[in-house]
Amino acid sequence: MLLDAIRSPKDLEGMNPRELEELAAELRQRILQTVSRNGGHLSSNLGVVELTIALHRSFDFSRDQLIFDVGHQCYAHKLLTGRGDQFDSLRQYNGLTGFPKREESPYDAFNTGHASTAISAAVGLCRARDAQGQHHHVVAVVGDGALTGGMCYEALNDAGSNKLRLIVVLNDNGMSISRNVGAVSGYLTRMRAGKGWFDAKRAISGALKRIPLIGDTLYRVFHRFKNSIRNIFVQDRLFDSLGFHYLGPVDGSDIQGLERLFARAKQLDEPVLIHVVTQKGSGYTQAEDHPSRLHGTPPFDVDTGRPLSESAASMSAAAGDELLALAQEDPRVVAVTAAMTAGTGLLNFAYEMPGRLYDVGIAEEHAVTMAAGLAAGGMRPFVAIYDTFLQRGFDQVLHDVCLQHLPVCFLMDRAGLSEDGPTHHGIYGVSYLSQLPGIQVLCAFSRAELRAMMRYALTQDGPVAIRYHKADFSGLPDHPKPSVYRPVWQCLRQGEDLAMLAAGAIVSEALKAAELLENQGLRCAVYDASCVVPLDEETLSSIHAPLVTVEEGALRGGLGSLIQLYCQQKDIPGPVLTLGLTGTCMTQGDRASQLRAHGLDAGSIAQRVLTWRKKS
Amino acid sequence: MLLDAIRSPKDLEGMNPRELEELAAELRQRILQTVSRNGGHLSSNLGVVELTIALHRSFDFSRDQLIFDVGHQCYAHKLLTGRGDQFDSLRQYNGLTGFPKREESPYDAFNTGHASTAISAAVGLCRARDAQGQHHHVVAVVGDGALTGGMCYEALNDAGSNKLRLIVVLNDNGMSISRNVGAVSGYLTRMRAGKGWFDAKRAISGALKRIPLIGDTLYRVFHRFKNSIRNIFVQDRLFDSLGFHYLGPVDGSDIQGLERLFARAKQLDEPVLIHVVTQKGSGYTQAEDHPSRLHGTPPFDVDTGRPLSESAASMSAAAGDELLALAQEDPRVVAVTAAMTAGTGLLNFAYEMPGRLYDVGIAEEHAVTMAAGLAAGGMRPFVAIYDTFLQRGFDQVLHDVCLQHLPVCFLMDRAGLSEDGPTHHGIYGVSYLSQLPGIQVLCAFSRAELRAMMRYALTQDGPVAIRYHKADFSGLPDHPKPSVYRPVWQCLRQGEDLAMLAAGAIVSEALKAAELLENQGLRCAVYDASCVVPLDEETLSSIHAPLVTVEEGALRGGLGSLIQLYCQQKDIPGPVLTLGLTGTCMTQGDRASQLRAHGLDAGSIAQRVLTWRKKS
Repeated sequence: MLLDAIRSPKDLEGMNPRELEELAAELRQRILQTVSRNGGHLSSNLGVVELTIALHRSFDFSRDQLIFDVGHQCYAHKLLTGRGDQFDSLRQYNGLTGFPKREESPYDAFNTGHASTAISAAVGLCRARDAQGQHHHVVAVVGDGALTGGMCYEALNDAGSNKLRLIVVLNDNGMSISRNVGAVSGYLTRMRAGKGWFDAKRAISGALKRIPLIGDTLYRVFHRFKNSIRNIFVQDRLFDSLGFHYLGPVDGSDIQGLERLFARAKQLDEPVLIHVVTQKGSGYTQAEDHPSRLHGTPPFDVDTGRPLSESAASMSAAAGDELLALAQEDPRVVAVTAAMTAGTGLLNFAYEMPGRLYDVGIAEEHAVTMAAGLAAGGMRPFVAIYDTFLQRGFDQVLHDVCLQHLPVCFLMDRAGLSEDGPTHHGIYGVSYLSQLPGIQVLCAFSRAELRAMMRYALTQDGPVAIRYHKADFSGLPDHPKPSVYRPVWQCLRQGEDLAMLAAGAIVSEALKAAELLENQGLRCAVYDASCVVPLDEETLSSIHAPLVTVEEGALRGGLGSLIQLYCQQKDIPGPVLTLGLTGTCMTQGDRASQLRAHGLDAGSIAQRVLTWRKKS
Repeated sequence: MLLDAIRSPKDLEGMNPRELEELAAELRQRILQTVSRNGGHLSSNLGVVELTIALHRSFDFSRDQLIFDVGHQCYAHKLLTGRGDQFDSLRQYNGLTGFPKREESPYDAFNTGHASTAISAAVGLCRARDAQGQHHHVVAVVGDGALTGGMCYEALNDAGSNKLRLIVVLNDNGMSISRNVGAVSGYLTRMRAGKGWFDAKRAISGALKRIPLIGDTLYRVFHRFKNSIRNIFVQDRLFDSLGFHYLGPVDGSDIQGLERLFARAKQLDEPVLIHVVTQKGSGYTQAEDHPSRLHGTPPFDVDTGRPLSESAASMSAAAGDELLALAQEDPRVVAVTAAMTAGTGLLNFAYEMPGRLYDVGIAEEHAVTMAAGLAAGGMRPFVAIYDTFLQRGFDQVLHDVCLQHLPVCFLMDRAGLSEDGPTHHGIYGVSYLSQLPGIQVLCAFSRAELRAMMRYALTQDGPVAIRYHKADFSGLPDHPKPSVYRPVWQCLRQGEDLAMLAAGAIVSEALKAAELLENQGLRCAVYDASCVVPLDEETLSSIHAPLVTVEEGALRGGLGSLIQLYCQQKDIPGPVLTLGLTGTCMTQGDRASQLRAHGLDAGSIAQRVLTWRKKS
């Protein structure tokens, strides 16, 4: 194996084209094997194998700086930068992370995870370089999907107008996580559609030379015209407008072609955009044919591309089904998503009611305020979004939704700890929303509760956020005809010695912990504290057993903290234990291991209760 | 007065050009009078008087929908839509707000305050209209400065690619709150610089017609060329790229010219951008000459444009001075701001060290991640930003700064209640930051403390946020050579009966409250709880008197709540009173009135303590 001999990118130097091709095949094989076993991001990584090789042959990233936007396309990069030995542990608890990590390697210049940050980070690194009189290159690799994020535009605008020496590699694979959205995407599609781009440009240039020039004015016009022919052909000139020197497009599987453009870019003392056309899933038929299904995937069978095991019952699917039902009943109901149609279970909705779903691309800020506009116009928008990505729209939730008390419902998927680790944990949702005026924050424990909450949201005249884990751990059946939700804490288990208040998926751990405690002679009530804001004050005041709060989220500003504040103000005894996540929560991998690490699995919860019991 | 006769925009219909000119003069006079007395936004409002008249003559905003981006340019609009009688109360406590408010008038379609939201909201309103089979027009008025915000681009991209029937009025006044920044701004400047725009276009078109056409290919090319001449002349075609039909530029003081373009725009069944060139401060020499100084202003003398009274000692100025001193001492220190160079006291810095200040425009997301890049590259960035605007960068603070534990210092100006009201209160800063891993959150009480904190931040290896009100209420002297800050709660006043813990500007109210309580025989200690995250656990544990927390911020996730959480975990008695702001905080106007309304002035604090005392 050639790959085994690569200890650092320096080892790529002497390889000939044939060896490089072989190496690319080996990288693909290794990525495919590992992801099929561990789960992870497949299509995006298979698409950038040659690009990554070319980057490492053209630059010296022990000195130059490379930032992968989003970061989930960095597997080949990890394999080429001395992390092959640990690659089997990819995305596992305490294993190699699925994203660039400065803590992991000097070849990782900046951590990423959320989309559209790389150019901003690169602008900062360029300025730091220039301020310190250094001369290395800074390269940001950005997918075309991430370009729908306004932050990219803010950064391109800054870099372009200040003529920073920066190389942006546009990884144009024609498919972001959902479909690409918007005018910018259309622009890239048209560029790709221009077959024989180079040839056509030459032909037109030749023809132009034969046109007689008419006076000075027209000469200048023609000079501009000649320069702009390229732009006319590619229809627009967005990157030029933003001050970038445009190079490409180049075939992303052509290592030599890529190296030629990189060599050119290194000589330019200005912002450069290199347009690279890649294919997601390249080299693996199942991923080429189904790039979206194999974008982020659980462990799967390499032959069929199908998941190895049936996944747990999906809260996302229940949300999607219920939203479709609501939309069919109520013409005011529409869906808004930020490039997460599939992830949030809305594929069926998109198929059945394409005109009632607005996918705005990776543009959470716009998604939230656009939804506020929909609500102000009399509609009932449901914004399906991951808990961690709504952070991008925090100001908009406050400024545009809450301050106008508009009936926008946020379907906050992926609440709780994420396999992907710190950048993707959905653990701040209660804290960042609970402080805002007039928003109700609900946490769904089961699919049936989630569905009922969605119907409840539709009856409210202000904003409602419903948070839920992607899987249903309740063990309860789904109810496509949900009963009416009332913002009341359900008592799921009786007990006089102690009352556990939990919200969302973690309720199941609280229930198991109560069973363990029962074996120790401690009778423990468990409440599904589904409405976190506002609290169910009536039930809370009616409980006379010592309170223990359990949450899979940040303690500060979380459920336990909100209950404390209320109890202090009402002068009733507050929780004796507040269990949740403290400041640093840097774990990744399977949920069970992470819960154990943070003392939030059933066993740990029971143990912590017993420890408190002994002390008091 | 013509203005007195205007009860609704319908009354504008019959007016002739001469009367309209007179009306514009009267509007300017009324705005100038009121703002000179109440304070407020002057330059931006004087700049859009004719534009506002033309809008109301061209559209019927009882049916059509008008959104002002940022919203602080809506004074003429308020005067023309039946709010003249209340205009004297502009921006005062319980008075007319300085921003559009749906609660105030049916002519206000959407509330604004922060920049760059209007197009997103308009896209939502358009979709709501289309879904309900309505036919009215939706108009968003957006300043050129706001276009640096990525959210605008996200919204333009969405509207353009979906060909929504939407009218965006670009209010191009060549100056946003700070100077305009970036390539987009350069683009607009070049358009403005093109003298005789219309004439030149005609000349070139004529010349082109005389060129013999060479074959089909070139015919098509020329067809494109002709269409693109306009774009070549205006250098780029950003709005076209984004799918908008571009109209203009038009002189923003030419009511008839504006009306012609609006009439044209109303006929188009696609997204339209109307480029209007206005002059900030138009009609008032002092504002024309000093548009930045009279952008947002306290009460001032109309003859000189100077403030009527010396403003309170400025925290912003101290921050700016100290940052300049730090930059002079340490080559790693740089300043980052998002169009708030003046507002955050950095004008001197910009003058002395222009190369060390990065103003990225209204682009808070980019500002934060760019600063993270600077820090990752070895620099020491200080991001000078308003507390309320950092909300825009919430995800970036977590994802790019905190998760990498990068030494970025946030100088969070305008913490606490804002005269401008709900959209601008800096009351969530502690809550939204305290939940994030590894960031220190400090609140400065005095200029001297602020300076010392900034030096302290420079010694830390992770992120530090320093929050402060714009004015110094401490009564303490400034110290340009600050002493060393230690994260310890200073006891400012001794007392055995009670201990008040307060942070930031509100410490002065706590001190006054303690004096009032002393008169009632209650000896009350007061601590400057300057470090909110992490808490000064040593001092906290050493206090044995009942605790009262006082904060000018949201209670949920705030200082009191953090202390409660700590006390519960350490099993020591928590606060007996947590004073701060609850959910809805919709007040505006002078700080004293607002503090009273929320029970946070010295008298109310003392009263609330006495009430508690009686109960217990």
